[in-house]
Amino acid sequence: MKALAVIAVLAAIVGLVVAVVLAMWIKNSDQGTDRMKEISGFIREGAFAFLKREYKIMAIVIAVLFLLIGICIGWVTAILYIFGAVLSVLAGFFGMNVATWGNVRTANAAKESGMNKALKIAFRSGAVMGLAVSGLGLFGLGIVVVCLDLATVTQCITGFGFGASSMALFGRVGGGIYTKAADVGADLVGKVEAGIPEDDPRNPAVIADNVGDNVGDVAGMGSDLYESYVGSMISAITLAAVAAAASGGLFTQEVAALFPLIMAAVGILSSIVGILLVRGKEGSNPANALNMGTYIAAGCVVIVSIILSKAMLGSFMFAVAIIAGLIVGVAIGKITEIYTSGDYSSVKKIAEQSQTGSATTIIAGLGVGMMSTVWPILCISVGIFAAYFATETVGPGMGMYGIALAAVGMLSTTGMTVAVDAYGPVSDNAGGIAEMAELPAEVREITDKLDSVGNTTAAIGKGFAIGSAALTALALFASYSAVTKLTMISLLNPIVIIGLFIGAMLPFMFSAFTMNSVGRAANQMIEEVRRQFRADAGILAGTSKPDYAHCVDISTKAALKEMIVPGLMAIIAPLAVGIILGPEALGGMLAGALASGVLLALMMANAGGAWDNAKKYIEEGHYGGKGSEAHKAGVVGDTVGDPFKDTSGPSINILIKLMTIVSVVFAPLFVAIGGLIG
Amino acid sequence: MKALAVIAVLAAIVGLVVAVVLAMWIKNSDQGTDRMKEISGFIREGAFAFLKREYKIMAIVIAVLFLLIGICIGWVTAILYIFGAVLSVLAGFFGMNVATWGNVRTANAAKESGMNKALKIAFRSGAVMGLAVSGLGLFGLGIVVVCLDLATVTQCITGFGFGASSMALFGRVGGGIYTKAADVGADLVGKVEAGIPEDDPRNPAVIADNVGDNVGDVAGMGSDLYESYVGSMISAITLAAVAAAASGGLFTQEVAALFPLIMAAVGILSSIVGILLVRGKEGSNPANALNMGTYIAAGCVVIVSIILSKAMLGSFMFAVAIIAGLIVGVAIGKITEIYTSGDYSSVKKIAEQSQTGSATTIIAGLGVGMMSTVWPILCISVGIFAAYFATETVGPGMGMYGIALAAVGMLSTTGMTVAVDAYGPVSDNAGGIAEMAELPAEVREITDKLDSVGNTTAAIGKGFAIGSAALTALALFASYSAVTKLTMISLLNPIVIIGLFIGAMLPFMFSAFTMNSVGRAANQMIEEVRRQFRADAGILAGTSKPDYAHCVDISTKAALKEMIVPGLMAIIAPLAVGIILGPEALGGMLAGALASGVLLALMMANAGGAWDNAKKYIEEGHYGGKGSEAHKAGVVGDTVGDPFKDTSGPSINILIKLMTIVSVVFAPLFVAIGGLIG
Repeated sequence: MKALAVIAVLAAIVGLVVAVVLAMWIKNSDQGTDRMKEISGFIREGAFAFLKREYKIMAIVIAVLFLLIGICIGWVTAILYIFGAVLSVLAGFFGMNVATWGNVRTANAAKESGMNKALKIAFRSGAVMGLAVSGLGLFGLGIVVVCLDLATVTQCITGFGFGASSMALFGRVGGGIYTKAADVGADLVGKVEAGIPEDDPRNPAVIADNVGDNVGDVAGMGSDLYESYVGSMISAITLAAVAAAASGGLFTQEVAALFPLIMAAVGILSSIVGILLVRGKEGSNPANALNMGTYIAAGCVVIVSIILSKAMLGSFMFAVAIIAGLIVGVAIGKITEIYTSGDYSSVKKIAEQSQTGSATTIIAGLGVGMMSTVWPILCISVGIFAAYFATETVGPGMGMYGIALAAVGMLSTTGMTVAVDAYGPVSDNAGGIAEMAELPAEVREITDKLDSVGNTTAAIGKGFAIGSAALTALALFASYSAVTKLTMISLLNPIVIIGLFIGAMLPFMFSAFTMNSVGRAANQMIEEVRRQFRADAGILAGTSKPDYAHCVDISTKAALKEMIVPGLMAIIAPLAVGIILGPEALGGMLAGALASGVLLALMMANAGGAWDNAKKYIEEGHYGGKGSEAHKAGVVGDTVGDPFKDTSGPSINILIKLMTIVSVVFAPLFVAIGGLIG
Repeated sequence: MKALAVIAVLAAIVGLVVAVVLAMWIKNSDQGTDRMKEISGFIREGAFAFLKREYKIMAIVIAVLFLLIGICIGWVTAILYIFGAVLSVLAGFFGMNVATWGNVRTANAAKESGMNKALKIAFRSGAVMGLAVSGLGLFGLGIVVVCLDLATVTQCITGFGFGASSMALFGRVGGGIYTKAADVGADLVGKVEAGIPEDDPRNPAVIADNVGDNVGDVAGMGSDLYESYVGSMISAITLAAVAAAASGGLFTQEVAALFPLIMAAVGILSSIVGILLVRGKEGSNPANALNMGTYIAAGCVVIVSIILSKAMLGSFMFAVAIIAGLIVGVAIGKITEIYTSGDYSSVKKIAEQSQTGSATTIIAGLGVGMMSTVWPILCISVGIFAAYFATETVGPGMGMYGIALAAVGMLSTTGMTVAVDAYGPVSDNAGGIAEMAELPAEVREITDKLDSVGNTTAAIGKGFAIGSAALTALALFASYSAVTKLTMISLLNPIVIIGLFIGAMLPFMFSAFTMNSVGRAANQMIEEVRRQFRADAGILAGTSKPDYAHCVDISTKAALKEMIVPGLMAIIAPLAVGIILGPEALGGMLAGALASGVLLALMMANAGGAWDNAKKYIEEGHYGGKGSEAHKAGVVGDTVGDPFKDTSGPSINILIKLMTIVSVVFAPLFVAIGGLIG
């Protein structure tokens, strides 16, 4: 059966090779004028400087956790922890590197050849990130399965997931704080106080803002989905023994463990097909091309899953779970679009409420964010229901494996999903470069169009990331119960209720930390930009150059400093509850964090997206257009939404996954201690 | 043992007699000038017009539910449902009536005799509400216990709680929408657009604003705590059989059922002592007098609980549970103060962030609101832990009764708590009347001081209301498990997880409804105020009178219309989940709603309180004072905070209690059906 694992590794390698080919194709495109090269060089430099310093700090965290895991749990798990973390770093570096190649070339393609070529470069830059994430994730897991025996894999593979999670946490939180400190700072002084347009080269924070898109929305987002991707498979692998036992001899544990890897392999190949088929038509909406690619990739997975479900596991019911996951993912994306796109009534209502000032804008946006949680939660519920009860018909006790497969199904097309998602910040950067390099208005028009589609795809991507985090965390929660051998975690046990309360509180506390971090970091940026404007009047006049590097440095330092506390909190909280109150309370805590975290993340991400597009809707000329009172209120909404949608909201995904995987990894310890007072 | 129930009824009657005496004392105070009488008459008229129309609508809801309960569950339960609802109406009418007597007399006392007398009248007006709530609550429960045999009481008493809950829901939601629609409308056009001060008689919405304080912050708040008060006792009564069984013959079910009533009787008498000892000293901070009264009342309960715990139930451990509840209540109040009072750093930080505009004000306030959830949750957790494990030492299986007793302990001094809480809106109204009747500045100074203390006590009261709702809902959750005879509600059962997700989502959906309702209603008010200003320039010039009645009418109609959907949702959601997914899923739903609801309520109430006081802090002269840019940002924060702290946040309390009690009442139905698909 190891042969199947080798197939998964080979598919992963195919994905990586395609990524390299695409990367070379991008690199060989023309970069445009010297000015463009210079600006893009600044962005690259800033992005890599941040990533290097971020990884240096994380190296310390990783070393500490390596020792902790090694001593408390086992050295194989500890080594897999490092392996999972290192592959995350590689994916981040490689993907972001190509994204910084792509931005300037997209701008140049918009200038030289028009929309079609620009879309192609931007999308393929995203595709490299997508294939790097899924290729390296599957490659790593495949290698582990090939090299170790099944018992060791089952016991230690969670270390790999923990490595992915801990990198993701710091990546999302650090990147999120970076990008929003720069963005809020640049907007509040540049746009609001000085009245210069977005991405104006006179704004000292403009480079930091563009760097932020890369470290937050490309590298941070990639590490998030990398984690969900490997987490979903790991959970299925750890539940394989339970599934095999429940199958009554229909399949072995080994096959059950390999099935998710093979499905992921199918997903990568399907994503490649989808990616290569994305090509814009001059004059048509680029969103159509992206949607087409997504549907093709998903369609391929659906068809193959039906065949493989029967062939490998002897029942079509496992395909039901896979397909349920895929449908939930697509549905959440669509629902997100309805609540955050300017084409629908929610965003229009926020814009309308902006006429009575920023207070009503905020109230309306929060209302939309809260209301937007309803359908995704119902979708997730239906998905869980379908995946569980369909597979439970195969044999009692199979259902949890079915939920894990739903997560695998949802994430199988991660290559495509990340590609579409990362396309957004690349286009955004391209627009920034076009503005800063003072390219003609037509170029900016093309990049604006790409960017506006990118905003919607980014919002959809966030919804998808939250949905996948929910299913992955739930699947890992099932693994937790399997590892701790708990037969029930009853809400009638008050220690579980205490855990539930504490767990539900953690995402709020975590969001408070990250929001305050953005506030503090943005304030530093505001002071610095104001200082530069005061110190040299030539900057605003356009006669002297601002000190971009200093702003980049402020964002970098602030993000690195501010990511520590929330990051450690996510690791320490489950350890503390598990050790002090015991494994059942910890189960309650994980469920509480999952429930309140998913809600809060959906609310924040969607409110943020809706405010952003309400502002854009006003800018299109509604309710007085740019410069009107409604527009000012819209800008306030957008600014509040920035940390919502790009820092706190998405970081919660990682929080809930990371806390669950920490619990799974350290479960033997908690069981041994049994709760100091619980 | 019925004799003990008679004692409880007598104590309740004592409380009611004291309330009537205080009410007469207030009525006999002087009302001041004709202008003051006229204004106060407008407020009374508007408040009663609203309450009457509100109760008319609720009469339909009550009739439908009466039939539903009678047919599905039993007619005794249905009759007790009516009884619980009618007593809630009586408490609301009586308490609000006296509050509308108190406001004008407080203003007059401030004019004629100074701070001392004004404080006394305002506080005693609140005390009438407090004693009406606790007196009628205990009277009703006592009568039920006296008149029916124990088995019937145990089975049907939840109907009484449901009656209290359903009135509370519409009271809180309707009142909350009313008060904030008027407040936001009056502020946005009056203060922001026309630049006239708060409570200026030229503002057409000013009477509606003052009416809102009475229907929302007095009647609505009172119905909320009335519900918690009776809910906590009902839960202890329904758990009495379990407790007696667990006691191994230490006490009978009858004693266990009567103990909470006797503790409540002690609480009423203690509250009377506390209330009568509240007297301000000229020149001292009125907060001290209020705090002193609260501590005296709590101290009396502590001492007597120790004696009665041993005497009635044969162990001191039940006093531990009572005292744990009391301490948690006081602690949450104190924590709330720290996060929402201008004397502490959180509010100051929001004010500081206001210098960079309203976006940073909002971000900072949300951060404070989220962070403010941490300590209350930990307090509640410790309280649950202490109450459960202390009583569990008496006999295994006792712990849930212990948690119910903690809720009883927390709420035993409801008379005092509501008095302090309702004192706030009375003072606020007094200030409004002083302003509208153009009384001298010194008068306004006194009422301002009373009002500012009232803001803090109101915030503390909100924290207390949330904490008590959490404990009450949890205790009722234990009753739910007892009634359904579920031995576990395991988080490893996916149907429970689905329930948990749906439950966690409901408070968000509910808040979205209520926030949007406030937004819509406020918009109507804004349009009307603008229309009046446009139609008659004499209004702003002060030469012609605005049409107050029309604004009152708008608020009334809007609140009544908007309360229907969220109100029905709270009743239908548990019925739907219980019938479709079954009793276990419903258990998960209740836990999910409890966890996310408490968090969301704390966040919204505290963020709202903090914004309010940050604005006041700026108005005191910090960061540029009134009229500065920071102040404008502060006003935006305050306006966003209005529906947070006075509509959505407090309504969530009722949502979680009501859904739990609906589940308890209809539990036999759900068990019989067993879930259509679950």
